[in-house]
Amino acid sequence: MLFYDSPNPAPNPRRVRIFAAEKGIDLPRREVSIPQREQKAPDYLEKNPRGQTPILELDDGTVIAESVAIMRYLEALHPEPPLFGTTPLEIAQVEMWCRRVEMILMPPVAQVWVHTHPFTAALPGRNSEWGEANRPRVAEALRFFDRSLAEREYTAGDRFTAADILLLTAVDFARFIGLETVDGLDALGGWHGRVSARESAAA
Amino acid sequence: MLFYDSPNPAPNPRRVRIFAAEKGIDLPRREVSIPQREQKAPDYLEKNPRGQTPILELDDGTVIAESVAIMRYLEALHPEPPLFGTTPLEIAQVEMWCRRVEMILMPPVAQVWVHTHPFTAALPGRNSEWGEANRPRVAEALRFFDRSLAEREYTAGDRFTAADILLLTAVDFARFIGLETVDGLDALGGWHGRVSARESAAA
Repeated sequence: MLFYDSPNPAPNPRRVRIFAAEKGIDLPRREVSIPQREQKAPDYLEKNPRGQTPILELDDGTVIAESVAIMRYLEALHPEPPLFGTTPLEIAQVEMWCRRVEMILMPPVAQVWVHTHPFTAALPGRNSEWGEANRPRVAEALRFFDRSLAEREYTAGDRFTAADILLLTAVDFARFIGLETVDGLDALGGWHGRVSARESAAA
Repeated sequence: MLFYDSPNPAPNPRRVRIFAAEKGIDLPRREVSIPQREQKAPDYLEKNPRGQTPILELDDGTVIAESVAIMRYLEALHPEPPLFGTTPLEIAQVEMWCRRVEMILMPPVAQVWVHTHPFTAALPGRNSEWGEANRPRVAEALRFFDRSLAEREYTAGDRFTAADILLLTAVDFARFIGLETVDGLDALGGWHGRVSARESAAA
């Protein structure tokens, strides 16, 4: 298999790198440069018509797109340590918290990025008023995760899971684009220190 | 367990109803009226601080929020028929297509709904220019699914899966808010007819 990867600050490829590091999987990789728009090149679009990284190409040419789909594929092949839960309730809780990151935190972060950041100024359809309206939504989302992390050590419970990987990469990307993240949020800040100290976070 | 449900046109509770119908699971249910804003009432917010339906409350009081998390919980308890795949590749492909519905089709549909529809006119922060800008993104997303359904019978492959449930509920909600959906898109239209003819679609 071949992992089509893009370097930081891209949050989605980093999810898979951290996931693989937690599992001890060494993924053969090829770099796709987002600043050079290699993810929009015709040969890449043939693999993923959405023009996004990461993808995982299997030896028979089958392509798995979407970071979490790649993570679930790796989980099925390498179940230990489990990062998507094992009991029905854990499985549900990891999915619930993964989705809360995706649905509550990532959308406003992405809107601030696309509609207000200097790096994306050339993209069509920019609506800076809409982008600015998303800044308080990012702050509200971070407070939601802070309250929840005051009650447990990790995002989905008392174990490190895929939900922590999604939250970590989202928070770090928000910080990269200049948003305040853990300032004044003690539980979120403590969690961020814990998960950032793991060897996998350097991936 | 108790399923907190909201009637059509709410797409997320319907996902769980269709999923349970496919599995032959009879979920005890309580209705939460969105027009009456019962999902924002204090006793409901204690169960789900996000103020959204559906949720599944277990007998010990544990709450699972997020439609797909509830679906994964039911899949773990009732594996047959499998709706999230069984082989590593199927598992990845169902996740990939579920996410494509969530990331490509649902966001612009939701933005048209929130920012332009008469039913949501009273909500704060409305940006009608942004809402209108999402109409062509809905059309583009539907063409993407049409092209993909020209190559296979169901959303994620040759079997009905959770990805079909997500796509069906998204398309039907888009239609409810007045958007064109399958017009001129033969593969998507054919698929929509097939999945709508299943007994579960009436759920």
